[in-house]
Amino acid sequence: MTIKIGILGYGNLGRGVEAAVKMNGDLELKAVYTRRDPSQLKINTEGVPVKSTAELDKGNEDIDILVICGGSATDLPAMTPKYAALYNVIDSFDTHANIPVHFENVDKAAKAAGKVGIISCGWDPGMFSVNRLYSTAILPCGEAYTFWGKGVSQGHSDAVRRIDGVLDCRQYTIPVPAALERVRNGENPELTTREKHTRECFVVAEEGADLERIENEIKTMPNYFSDYDTTVHFITAEEMARDHSGLPHGGSVIYSGTSSEGTKHVIEYSLKLDSNPEFTGSVLAAYARAAVRLNKEGKTGAMTVFDIAPAYLSAIPADELRAHYL
Amino acid sequence: MTIKIGILGYGNLGRGVEAAVKMNGDLELKAVYTRRDPSQLKINTEGVPVKSTAELDKGNEDIDILVICGGSATDLPAMTPKYAALYNVIDSFDTHANIPVHFENVDKAAKAAGKVGIISCGWDPGMFSVNRLYSTAILPCGEAYTFWGKGVSQGHSDAVRRIDGVLDCRQYTIPVPAALERVRNGENPELTTREKHTRECFVVAEEGADLERIENEIKTMPNYFSDYDTTVHFITAEEMARDHSGLPHGGSVIYSGTSSEGTKHVIEYSLKLDSNPEFTGSVLAAYARAAVRLNKEGKTGAMTVFDIAPAYLSAIPADELRAHYL
Repeated sequence: MTIKIGILGYGNLGRGVEAAVKMNGDLELKAVYTRRDPSQLKINTEGVPVKSTAELDKGNEDIDILVICGGSATDLPAMTPKYAALYNVIDSFDTHANIPVHFENVDKAAKAAGKVGIISCGWDPGMFSVNRLYSTAILPCGEAYTFWGKGVSQGHSDAVRRIDGVLDCRQYTIPVPAALERVRNGENPELTTREKHTRECFVVAEEGADLERIENEIKTMPNYFSDYDTTVHFITAEEMARDHSGLPHGGSVIYSGTSSEGTKHVIEYSLKLDSNPEFTGSVLAAYARAAVRLNKEGKTGAMTVFDIAPAYLSAIPADELRAHYL
Repeated sequence: MTIKIGILGYGNLGRGVEAAVKMNGDLELKAVYTRRDPSQLKINTEGVPVKSTAELDKGNEDIDILVICGGSATDLPAMTPKYAALYNVIDSFDTHANIPVHFENVDKAAKAAGKVGIISCGWDPGMFSVNRLYSTAILPCGEAYTFWGKGVSQGHSDAVRRIDGVLDCRQYTIPVPAALERVRNGENPELTTREKHTRECFVVAEEGADLERIENEIKTMPNYFSDYDTTVHFITAEEMARDHSGLPHGGSVIYSGTSSEGTKHVIEYSLKLDSNPEFTGSVLAAYARAAVRLNKEGKTGAMTVFDIAPAYLSAIPADELRAHYL
């Protein structure tokens, strides 16, 4: 029996989930839901309908789980609890500071409805979190370091695009090689924000714009850039399209801990991703499978990647996993 | 409330578990059990008794879980089912081909007794297995590569020690850098045994022994060395003690998969361990905690690392994990 998937929102992430569903024989895309006019949206899977969220709101769509692909700032805090009252749901909520509140809201709605709601799923939060937890549990005396990149940060790219005179921007986050090296050597260094990552911006400016002002506005932008060493390159729209059309990303969680006086161990989990949204979509697809299985076993309420045993993620039966993957 | 741990067997691994227990405030070592004369065994934890396995066999020792530190060839296949009928148990059974049978035997005994038995726990099988599973579940279209080393293989060191004229040996398994490089680049190469790892032996020979014969016997030994490029160095007992007293190990699971036509992702999990037995002991300690918790929730039977949600491994409460580790 296949697991019936609905996708809410058809931006980069929604398309990433759609691609992931195609790679999994036991998953079936039933519909894409949009807040826009459904007739204006063309998706990449033939024969699958695009529907209005108004249909979803009636609560009787034929789906086993809804993958909610919205933004963490305003979409998900409202959408995930709302739809957890109607369907099993999963999201990639990534505002770390607000996770406890979001968890509570989804938990209340999902429990009342007898559904499962997985929040904060992807790679960070998600696979990186799982690795921080495994390492801390195995070696409680130690330190976790998370490095992001080299990769495109969409939030930072958007922030630069809002500057007057900027037509387009792609911002790359880059770990500082010397910092990576020290952590990998098990030195457990104290590192400032500036010592861990640098930022590089490729900017298409309006003709005649004051480039010096733009560069200065970027480099001094609080929260986003002022705590980093930032490089700004002005390029043409053609160069942007030719050299920066992808959304690669990645990074490493490096954990350095001891098991006795003087005995050190370094654990590293790293990702090199051609496409951030497609990989995140692939993680969401695997955990969507887990959510449906757990709900069928009678589990309800909010969960995170911490609460789900690895075997639930795979379409491969348990005895085959033990025989061939253990 | 602390979790009361018993350790059965006091070789390298038993001492590794003992060290791990000291790093975890919620774990308490209650006793070490030995098949030898208990009065002859001195352990590294003051005030903790050494007892005979005869005591254990009575079935009423005051422990929450027994960590069984025996060999996979003959000890564990008998011991783990036997003690799963009396206590929660955990082992590091690592004969991959026999895992299904071992699982069945432990499952039957543990279920009948209302206990939990975790088998095949450590880093391979163990953390490496978990990473193979996560990656395969997220990107079902891909390939997993496992590299071991650089590190000491105790099985191979023992095999060389059995050669006539050899007093001592330390065998290092070393991944071939070019193979690692190709896999990390996402080339998905087909690699033979010889192309993946080399082996390096440091040997102390008896005075006057025929070194050429020893070297030849090592290099042509079936299963252990004949499929590898092996280097043999003859050293003195002093050099052995000075340069090769540790048991470092490590390795990498590298998974290379696609999420759509032409879109590649590389996931790497790697370990650099100062002490193989202490790290394995640390993994066993974390999963021992999980076993006791799961049993308290009413779970029984055999389990592996695949069946256990990460949150069970950590002493940190669930809400704190969500707030600080997600």
